[in-house]
Amino acid sequence: MLVFFVCTTFVVFFGQIVIAQSNYNLSTQGKQNVQLIVSSDFVVTMNEAQPVITNGAIAIKDGKIVAVDTQDKIMASYRAKRTLPGKDMVLMPGLVNGHSHSAMVLFRGLADDLALEDWLQNYIFPAEAKFVDENFVRVGEQLACWEMIRGGTTTFVDMYFKSDVAAKVVDECGLRAIITGSSIDFPSPGFKGWDDAFAASVDFVKRWKDKNPRITPAIAPHAPYTVSPEHLVQAIRAARHYDVPLTIHLAETQTEVRDIQQRYNATPVQHLENLGFLDPRVFAAHVVWPNSSEIALLAKRGVGVIHNPDSNLKLASGFAPIPAMLKAGIKIGLGTDGAASNNVLDMWNAIRLTALIHKGTTLDPTAVPAKTVLRMATLGGAEALGLSDKIGAIKVGLQADLIQVHLKEPHLLPLYDVISHLVYAADAQDVDTVIVNGQVLMHKREMLTVDLERIRREASSIAENIKAEFRPSN
Amino acid sequence: MLVFFVCTTFVVFFGQIVIAQSNYNLSTQGKQNVQLIVSSDFVVTMNEAQPVITNGAIAIKDGKIVAVDTQDKIMASYRAKRTLPGKDMVLMPGLVNGHSHSAMVLFRGLADDLALEDWLQNYIFPAEAKFVDENFVRVGEQLACWEMIRGGTTTFVDMYFKSDVAAKVVDECGLRAIITGSSIDFPSPGFKGWDDAFAASVDFVKRWKDKNPRITPAIAPHAPYTVSPEHLVQAIRAARHYDVPLTIHLAETQTEVRDIQQRYNATPVQHLENLGFLDPRVFAAHVVWPNSSEIALLAKRGVGVIHNPDSNLKLASGFAPIPAMLKAGIKIGLGTDGAASNNVLDMWNAIRLTALIHKGTTLDPTAVPAKTVLRMATLGGAEALGLSDKIGAIKVGLQADLIQVHLKEPHLLPLYDVISHLVYAADAQDVDTVIVNGQVLMHKREMLTVDLERIRREASSIAENIKAEFRPSN
Repeated sequence: MLVFFVCTTFVVFFGQIVIAQSNYNLSTQGKQNVQLIVSSDFVVTMNEAQPVITNGAIAIKDGKIVAVDTQDKIMASYRAKRTLPGKDMVLMPGLVNGHSHSAMVLFRGLADDLALEDWLQNYIFPAEAKFVDENFVRVGEQLACWEMIRGGTTTFVDMYFKSDVAAKVVDECGLRAIITGSSIDFPSPGFKGWDDAFAASVDFVKRWKDKNPRITPAIAPHAPYTVSPEHLVQAIRAARHYDVPLTIHLAETQTEVRDIQQRYNATPVQHLENLGFLDPRVFAAHVVWPNSSEIALLAKRGVGVIHNPDSNLKLASGFAPIPAMLKAGIKIGLGTDGAASNNVLDMWNAIRLTALIHKGTTLDPTAVPAKTVLRMATLGGAEALGLSDKIGAIKVGLQADLIQVHLKEPHLLPLYDVISHLVYAADAQDVDTVIVNGQVLMHKREMLTVDLERIRREASSIAENIKAEFRPSN
Repeated sequence: MLVFFVCTTFVVFFGQIVIAQSNYNLSTQGKQNVQLIVSSDFVVTMNEAQPVITNGAIAIKDGKIVAVDTQDKIMASYRAKRTLPGKDMVLMPGLVNGHSHSAMVLFRGLADDLALEDWLQNYIFPAEAKFVDENFVRVGEQLACWEMIRGGTTTFVDMYFKSDVAAKVVDECGLRAIITGSSIDFPSPGFKGWDDAFAASVDFVKRWKDKNPRITPAIAPHAPYTVSPEHLVQAIRAARHYDVPLTIHLAETQTEVRDIQQRYNATPVQHLENLGFLDPRVFAAHVVWPNSSEIALLAKRGVGVIHNPDSNLKLASGFAPIPAMLKAGIKIGLGTDGAASNNVLDMWNAIRLTALIHKGTTLDPTAVPAKTVLRMATLGGAEALGLSDKIGAIKVGLQADLIQVHLKEPHLLPLYDVISHLVYAADAQDVDTVIVNGQVLMHKREMLTVDLERIRREASSIAENIKAEFRPSN
C-alpha cells in the first residue's frame, strides 16, 4: 500500500518523468511486459460505468488495450518499452469519420457557394472525369490521411474510386479504414457504368477481405436515385455473400425524396425496405429527410446512420433530425463527407456543429448534449460501421486506437469539465498524439508515417492542372 | 525598370530573405522610412476594387497603413526598420469581435446543455454574484485577450463589469476594444441596481473618452426586457451627449419578443423605435427574432447588428435572419458572445457557422457566400461598431490592425481560392502573426505582450474556488 501511495503522489505532483522513474524502481517486482503505456491527466473511456478516469493510464500489447486504470495501478503492474506521458492531456478513443470521399481533398475550395447542379455539372463531375486517375487518388488519399491524423481521426470510411490505391496509402500511413469503390448507374472515373464499376468493387472486396487488420473492404452503391432497384439488390446480396459492410447515400435532399417517391411510389428508406435491403451491415450517410416511420424502420433494421452536418449545411440539404433518430435508438456516427462539400476532414467541426445546430432547430438547449455528441464521434460511429467489437472505446480487449488532446491553449482554460472542452472548445490542432493499432502515427504533432514535403509538392502540381482548366483567371 | 523587374523576380522566387536584400540594396535611392513592412503571398484587402493582391505588401508608419501594393513596388519605395516576411501567408484585416463578455472565460464549460433558466439562475447569476470582483475581471480579461490574440481578433467589444480593470488589461496587451459596463435594472456585481451601475458606466465613459487611441468607452443598457423604458432613454441620451457608441442585447429569444409585446404592446425593435432610441451609434447583439418591418427599421435607422451564431445555437435562441438583414442593407458584424455560452472567443468558428447555417435554413447553397462572411468578420463589424474610418480593411490611412494566416497545414492544401480557405477551412490556430496599431502582438505564434504562465496560474486558482462551490463532485 505504501508503495502505491508514494507512486500516486509522485505522479500527481511531478508527472511523466517520475512515472518512468517509479516504473524503473518497481521493474523487478514481477510486472507484465507490454508494448506501450500511455498516461494522461484524464482518460475519457466511453464506458458508462466510468466515463472519465483522473490520472489514468492504459497498457497496450500486440496493438490491443490490455489494461485501463489509474496511473499508479498501471505502473505497479506493467513495464513498457515506451511510456507516453500525459501532463495536461486528455486520452480518448480516436475519432471515427463515418463518411468521406477522401481523395477529393484535391478539389478543396475549387467551387463553393454554388447551386447544387452548377457545382456538380460544371465543376465536380467534369473535374473528376478529367483528373481522377491512380496518381490523383494516391496523392489525394495521402493528403487526406495527413489531415485526418493531424485532427485525431483514427478510423475513416472512404467511398471513392481506385480503391486498391487508397488501400495501399492507408496501409502505409497506419490509419484504419473501411474502403469501398462507389458504384453508380452512369459513367464514373475509369468505368463505363454500373457493371464494370460494381465488378471492380466486388473484386476489391475479394482481394482485401481479411488481408489487413486495419482495412475492411465494403460495397457502396451510390444512392437510391443513381442506382436502379435491380442493382441495389445485387449490391446488398454481394455484401451479404462476402460478409462485408455496405454503405450508401440516403435521403440526402428533398429533391431525392420527391424523385424516389415519383419513380417508386415510396420514400427512400421505405424503397430500400421494399427491396429487402436494410439490415445491420448497412450504414447510410446523411439521412436528412426521413419521415417518422422511416426513422422507426432504420432503428428496427439496425441500420447505422452517419450524420454529416457540415456538408448538409454547405450544400443546403438541410438539418438531419438527429434528436428524433437518437430517441429511436438508431446507431449514429459522425462524418465529414468529402472536402469538396465541407471543406475540411475535421471531425472537431462536425462534433461542435452537431452539439449546436440541433439545439437551434428544436429551440431546446438540452438537445444533443456534449457527452452524446462525443459518443457519436467515437463509439457511436464504431457501432454504425459494425466495428464496435474492435474500436470506439477505451476498454480491455479493444484495439489501441487512441488520441491525446493537450489542454494548454488558452481556449481550453480553465477546466471544469473535460467532456465540455472536447465538444465545445477543442480544435483539430489541439490533438497532440495519435495511435492506431498500438502504433504511434503522430507525437507532439510530429508526423511519423507521412512524407509531408512530397505530398505538398505533388498536391500542388495536380492542383495547378485543375486550376488551369477550371479557374483560368486565378 | 530593370531594377524593379529584377526585384520582382527575386521576390516571387525566393521570398522574404531576398526582399530584405533588395530593400538593403536600394536603401540609398530616396526611399521613405517606415516603421514596418509586412509581405504576404496574398493580401486580402476588403476593398471591392482589388479584393486580393498576389505577392502583396503594406508599409506601416505611426501605426497607420501608408501604402498597399505589390511587394516589388513597396520594396522599391519604402525602407523599414523591420520587415515581416509572408511566404505561404495571407495578410488580412484583423478580425472584429462585435460582442463579448470577455472575463466570463473563467466560467468556460462550468455549465452546458442546460435549460436557460437553470443555467442563468443556478449557475451564471450566483457565480457572478459571488466571484466577479476586480481580480476576477483582471485575470479573466487577460485570459480572454490571450485567447483572442491567438485567434486573430484585433478589435473586440467587451460588455461586462469593472470596466476600468478591463481597460487597463486591454491597454497593456495591445488590443483594440470598445469597453462598456453593462447596466441593468436589478442587482449586478458591485451594484445595487440601475442607478449606481449606470452612473459608474457614465463615469467610465468620462474617464476614458479620447484617452487611449485603442480604447473606446461606450454605454450598454443590458436589454429591453431588463431595462425600463425610462432607463433606456437615459442611456441613449448619455451616449449622444458624450458622443460614444451604445450597445444592447436585442430580440435575442422568442420569450423576449412575447414579453416586450405584452408589456409595451410592441415588438423589441419597434419598442426601441418608439422611445427614439435607434440611430447609427447603436449596435445591437443577436437580433434573432426581428419581423420584416423591424428589419427595415434597423436598416433605415443605420443600427448595426452583431450576429452571434454559436451563442444563439448553444442557448437555443434560434437562427437570426441574416440573409434578409443583408438584403435590407443592415451593417452586420460577427461576435462570439461570452465563453459561458459559446464556449470559445473564436471568430473562425463564428465565420464558418455563419457561412453554413443560413444555407441550411434557406435551403439555398448560394446564401451568405464566403466573401460576404469574411466582410462581416472584418469591415462589416467595423461599420456596425462605427469604427470603419479606423479599421476593418487594408487601405491607406486606416490603422494597421492586421493578421497573417499561414497556409502550411494540410487542411489548407491545395489552394484554389484564398477567401474560400479563410472561411471554410482555416482555424484560429492557423493565425501566425497579429498586429494592432502597428504593434506586433504575436509573431510565429509567440505571444509578445501577455504573461502566459501567470495568467494560467491565476485562472486555475480562481477556477478552483468556483469549482468547489458549483461542481463539488468534480
